[in-house]
Amino acid sequence: MKFGIYLPSQIEDKKLPVIYWLSGLTCSEANFIEKSGAQRYAQEYGVVIVNPDTSPRGLNISGDKDNWDFGEGAGFYVDATEEPWKKNYNMFSYVTKELIEIISTNFNVIEGTQSIMGHSMGGHGALICALKNPGLYQSVSAFAPICNPSKCAWGRKAFEGYLGPQETSNWSDWDATELVKVYNGPPLCLFIDQGAADKFLQEEQLLPNNLVEACKIAKVPIILNKREGYDHSYFYISSFIGEHIKHHSGYLQK
Amino acid sequence: MKFGIYLPSQIEDKKLPVIYWLSGLTCSEANFIEKSGAQRYAQEYGVVIVNPDTSPRGLNISGDKDNWDFGEGAGFYVDATEEPWKKNYNMFSYVTKELIEIISTNFNVIEGTQSIMGHSMGGHGALICALKNPGLYQSVSAFAPICNPSKCAWGRKAFEGYLGPQETSNWSDWDATELVKVYNGPPLCLFIDQGAADKFLQEEQLLPNNLVEACKIAKVPIILNKREGYDHSYFYISSFIGEHIKHHSGYLQK
Repeated sequence: MKFGIYLPSQIEDKKLPVIYWLSGLTCSEANFIEKSGAQRYAQEYGVVIVNPDTSPRGLNISGDKDNWDFGEGAGFYVDATEEPWKKNYNMFSYVTKELIEIISTNFNVIEGTQSIMGHSMGGHGALICALKNPGLYQSVSAFAPICNPSKCAWGRKAFEGYLGPQETSNWSDWDATELVKVYNGPPLCLFIDQGAADKFLQEEQLLPNNLVEACKIAKVPIILNKREGYDHSYFYISSFIGEHIKHHSGYLQK
Repeated sequence: MKFGIYLPSQIEDKKLPVIYWLSGLTCSEANFIEKSGAQRYAQEYGVVIVNPDTSPRGLNISGDKDNWDFGEGAGFYVDATEEPWKKNYNMFSYVTKELIEIISTNFNVIEGTQSIMGHSMGGHGALICALKNPGLYQSVSAFAPICNPSKCAWGRKAFEGYLGPQETSNWSDWDATELVKVYNGPPLCLFIDQGAADKFLQEEQLLPNNLVEACKIAKVPIILNKREGYDHSYFYISSFIGEHIKHHSGYLQK
């Protein structure tokens, strides 16, 4: 598994907190490194940023390269239960356990002081990683996340493939809009960013209003920032990544 | 010919100055747009940025796709005199005349108030565009420019192909280190940026010291910023693009 890591210069003198970034469909670890412009903010706020790939690669599982929204580049941050995926497609465990251990063992970071954010499929990933592990992350944010995967085409396809049919498997364990309803842990505010001109919003792949409604009922605080005129691209991400890093930094450096 | 243009929001209310960016070998107009992070500085300083492609495309001239350092993606910002290039490979005239006219005709810019910068082959391009057109640009800067193309492998290959053999053609008309020696125009300070860990510096493709020596003799002011540890990549560019835009902005908004 490849990942990117940005180490600000302060790390030579002291341990720093970590923000994890989870990328969206079709991305490798390269997109965020090359296009987000996050580095200067990581330096400014003194945080390490770690960004893993979006799936295992090179396994040559039958069908893993046939779809841009399933298989390679589309691990969906779940632990698969279905064949032929369940042995390797365990992105949830990788991100929330193995990767954290690799980072704390090999870099000068403050163990246990970390936040998580992501984009689109990775926004979904960030939300479920935080909601399923109360207290593991100090804060969570997402750009244009897939908020209710059980109810959109991308999510249904992925869940069907990795988790099995909705009727016989527990999709709600992997769906942020369902998970907020049963969240039971330290206070956690969901910071959601959404471009108003995002075509995937219009195509109902993202469904942020479902998450907002669920948060209201569950009394989980949520901030939904609508950005007029912005689409789903890395240009949109690079425009607001500084705000997100600043947001997390407030939680990480108290 | 494709080009990128970034229009900061101020342009809705008033005419703005323009900075031209010339890219390096193998680039299209996309690299700068996606990787430089220049947009936020263009917005901050209120300047338009225009970045053309690095050569004509799609002509299917025999041999135009055989080399990454000659032909498509490698126009070298000269006006070719040799067959089969001379009809279309006129990047110098395109950048200094046609493109400027396209921009001033179609966008709300201050005509004649412009600067130029570039990277590697495009740094060479920026320098010769400024030196060969005294007064056309208010300022010029370059990241890791090919400073003395007549004396390096990339430049010699390109000049040989586009301009003909050194013995019988006027390479010095297209070489910044030669052009500073005969520069005769309004005061022009060359602002050069160079990563100290740039492998193409070590391979003597860039030769900034030759340009510095020529400037000393010709009494043309030059700033050479060496950046410890930086290479030739867009990560290096994105680290210092803000400084360059600020520099030009000082000349453009007096």
